[in-house]
Amino acid sequence: MEPIFTDEYFMKKALVEAENAFEKGEIPVGAIIVVDNRVIARSHNLTEMLHDVTAHAEMQAITAAANFIGGKYLKGCTLYVTLEPCQMCAGALYWSQISKIVFGARDEQRGFMTLGTQLHPKTEVVSGVMADQCAQLMKDFFKKRR
Amino acid sequence: MEPIFTDEYFMKKALVEAENAFEKGEIPVGAIIVVDNRVIARSHNLTEMLHDVTAHAEMQAITAAANFIGGKYLKGCTLYVTLEPCQMCAGALYWSQISKIVFGARDEQRGFMTLGTQLHPKTEVVSGVMADQCAQLMKDFFKKRR
Repeated sequence: MEPIFTDEYFMKKALVEAENAFEKGEIPVGAIIVVDNRVIARSHNLTEMLHDVTAHAEMQAITAAANFIGGKYLKGCTLYVTLEPCQMCAGALYWSQISKIVFGARDEQRGFMTLGTQLHPKTEVVSGVMADQCAQLMKDFFKKRR
Repeated sequence: MEPIFTDEYFMKKALVEAENAFEKGEIPVGAIIVVDNRVIARSHNLTEMLHDVTAHAEMQAITAAANFIGGKYLKGCTLYVTLEPCQMCAGALYWSQISKIVFGARDEQRGFMTLGTQLHPKTEVVSGVMADQCAQLMKDFFKKRR
């Protein structure tokens, strides 16, 4: 039997969040945080609606997960996010000591891998999960905007 | 006549915020945001109280200033912060396109200058304003904690 709780399984949920952002006219990035196969936070980019550059999907997910846990460290947690985190979000993930980050599409311009933002040494990174679908949503968004 | 609205004048206000953090048992970092010599945001570190790694003084100040302005870009604004911003805060400041960052003490371990976080090309940086007083508050805090 195939396992149910794969990285693809959870990335699909992050993609649903990204679609929610798209529908609101926000750059379509979605995120969820999972612990023991349970989703404890879900969020999408709200920078336009909130007039707030800090309202990236990942930042909201970190705050929501910490609220759920009742502590600021996200040890044992995995973040699924449709786009490679930026410097700000990677910097927040550093402080959170999160166990694992799984992202979809690369952000060659603003992503933390390109810009060399430091993560916590115990944080594992997996990239490219459903990358094409995650990137396509971004492409559709910017095509519609032009 | 000496000008009133100097970098020291505003850094003193950021230091008062850092003292507020100290009194709450938070790592003592304070920040204010100023536009046309008017303080539009003031904040201090609340990571312990809120159980939230994203609750750095600068992050709260960025959100508060954007709320005040009614837009997410902080062009024409100056951030005064007692400690060199970290990767997360510098990453947020990048997105905000803030005009000027004035900080007090260096953070040789976690500061954005050490870690190479990219700021917006139009952002001017001034460092070392009241650095000794800002650093002393940190030293007193960690001495008390031991």
